[in-house]
Amino acid sequence: MDIRTVEWASGKVRMIDQTLLPSEEVFIELETVEEVANSICTMQVRGAPAIGVTAALGVALAAHQYDGNAEGFEACLLETCDTLAATRPTAVNLFWAIEKMKQAINETNGHDLEKARENIIKTALEIADEDEHINRAMGSFGNELVPDGATILTHCNAGSLATAYYGTALGVVRAAHEAGKNVQVFADETRPLLQGARLTAWELGKIGVKTTLISDNMAAYVMSKGMIDIVIVGADRIAGNGDVANKIGTYGVALAAARHDIPFYVAAPTSTVDLSLKSGSEIPIEERHHEEVTHIKGINLAPEGVNVFNPAFDVTPNELVSAIITEKGIARHPYETSLSSFING
Amino acid sequence: MDIRTVEWASGKVRMIDQTLLPSEEVFIELETVEEVANSICTMQVRGAPAIGVTAALGVALAAHQYDGNAEGFEACLLETCDTLAATRPTAVNLFWAIEKMKQAINETNGHDLEKARENIIKTALEIADEDEHINRAMGSFGNELVPDGATILTHCNAGSLATAYYGTALGVVRAAHEAGKNVQVFADETRPLLQGARLTAWELGKIGVKTTLISDNMAAYVMSKGMIDIVIVGADRIAGNGDVANKIGTYGVALAAARHDIPFYVAAPTSTVDLSLKSGSEIPIEERHHEEVTHIKGINLAPEGVNVFNPAFDVTPNELVSAIITEKGIARHPYETSLSSFING
Repeated sequence: MDIRTVEWASGKVRMIDQTLLPSEEVFIELETVEEVANSICTMQVRGAPAIGVTAALGVALAAHQYDGNAEGFEACLLETCDTLAATRPTAVNLFWAIEKMKQAINETNGHDLEKARENIIKTALEIADEDEHINRAMGSFGNELVPDGATILTHCNAGSLATAYYGTALGVVRAAHEAGKNVQVFADETRPLLQGARLTAWELGKIGVKTTLISDNMAAYVMSKGMIDIVIVGADRIAGNGDVANKIGTYGVALAAARHDIPFYVAAPTSTVDLSLKSGSEIPIEERHHEEVTHIKGINLAPEGVNVFNPAFDVTPNELVSAIITEKGIARHPYETSLSSFING
Repeated sequence: MDIRTVEWASGKVRMIDQTLLPSEEVFIELETVEEVANSICTMQVRGAPAIGVTAALGVALAAHQYDGNAEGFEACLLETCDTLAATRPTAVNLFWAIEKMKQAINETNGHDLEKARENIIKTALEIADEDEHINRAMGSFGNELVPDGATILTHCNAGSLATAYYGTALGVVRAAHEAGKNVQVFADETRPLLQGARLTAWELGKIGVKTTLISDNMAAYVMSKGMIDIVIVGADRIAGNGDVANKIGTYGVALAAARHDIPFYVAAPTSTVDLSLKSGSEIPIEERHHEEVTHIKGINLAPEGVNVFNPAFDVTPNELVSAIITEKGIARHPYETSLSSFING
């Protein structure tokens, strides 16, 4: 699959509109910071690493378009950072990327405007490029955990579409596939927004990995029937103790995997690890619109006026996580030390 | 809610078409055995007790319409039984009701045709009436297990719509509500056919029980947040050891409930218990059309040609079942003895 999820295109931010997949492959070109922020809020782009990259490119867009004097440049970009940081609360990669951009903004101090503008754009492009390298490194480490002939269950989409390119959990699948292993995937459809059905099945189809689509509530059953060898999912934020926030439903998958002694792996870059949080209970969990649950493609499926609860993420406690695959290597229990050694060591 | 799910109406079988709920409340009148069989296959009527009642009424319809000579009556009705038995494999109530009708057919031997016809119809109507009485008895027993102020999670629809009237799992909720307890329900939407969103939320709204709709994959999360006090679900077949086949996803709910020490109750009439099966592994699990997963209301949500696995039921092992609420009382571990004492004792 040679589609870039999000990229810099001659002074615009170009992305594939993921809300329209798989029925339409539409690329949109965003020309304002507001459009970029909106693309994250509405999940035209989603996936923790991809929204980090998108935010960085949003700051680059602001730098590119800035037409005031040199003195106002920094303040304008910092305001852009605030706008982009307010889009979604759970994935920490967003804040990580914005923090990187803020450092770059600080470093422009004293440069002339054109040089400063150039440096900001360069930093954003580096974040985007680095994401692919990180994913390929994760794929390479993760491949060691994938037996030949494995059937892999995944939840949501932690694929190329969740990153600048290549993917995290599906990057591992892809690395195993590219290494010549005969692997296949069971994809949870992932209600309410169906990223598994719409994105994972589509993406794996493009690279020729055999995929079977199931409803989320079938995962425990297929495990009980011996049909799954390993689980690999992505992450939106990982606390210092290895508790993993990921798309709602991940926790239930982990419980079922534990019951059936199936390894449960998380693939995520170290930018997803938030050492400032001791445990997953501190991770803010986004709640989204009720219509995501009651409506599909504009059609109301539930009685008018029904109450809805729509948390977008859940937290899988570290004891259910067999290993965390990062670009620095594979972290294992106790995660307090293994994760911090990757980040600080 | 005063809607009868399925009933005998002047020589026709009248039912509410559950595939159209909640957006349309359409009653259909079936005039042939083929239409009755089709209504079960296509899930215009569903729910283990309701399809048992429907099958009995289907045999009554055949008796009502029979216009041959007395000698051919029994053979005609036995053929009807075979047609109806071939509709769905998992819910044992279907076969239980057909077995009851076969006994009645045997007993017509020697009677004149009009008397025989009358007896068959009377037996079917008794099965329908008995279903409501059984559900009210279950509600009464089950109510003892429901604390005042309880928040109850349920999966699929084991409500009035899954029975002739009143419901099994939701019959217990209803009994608690009618007893003046302040109870509320979290309803799993229940993919792929969304019986929770379409039927449970609709039905509980009609009787004034506060209901919150969630996606199936949110159940473990809401339990982890302390939001659920007890789980009550129905059953399609219960093996002699207390293993419970119920709508796909029930097993995952039971695993999450066990993790959080939340009582997991099954409400089902003794006609759902199949003592001929030692364990749940012997229960046949229906697989249904791929389009149920890939399409909603005719709209394709997944990539063209994706492979799908669509088991309609799963099996919850008895050790995860806190109690089984029947019309004879509450069965507890060891189920081998408690269930068989209700049925044989």
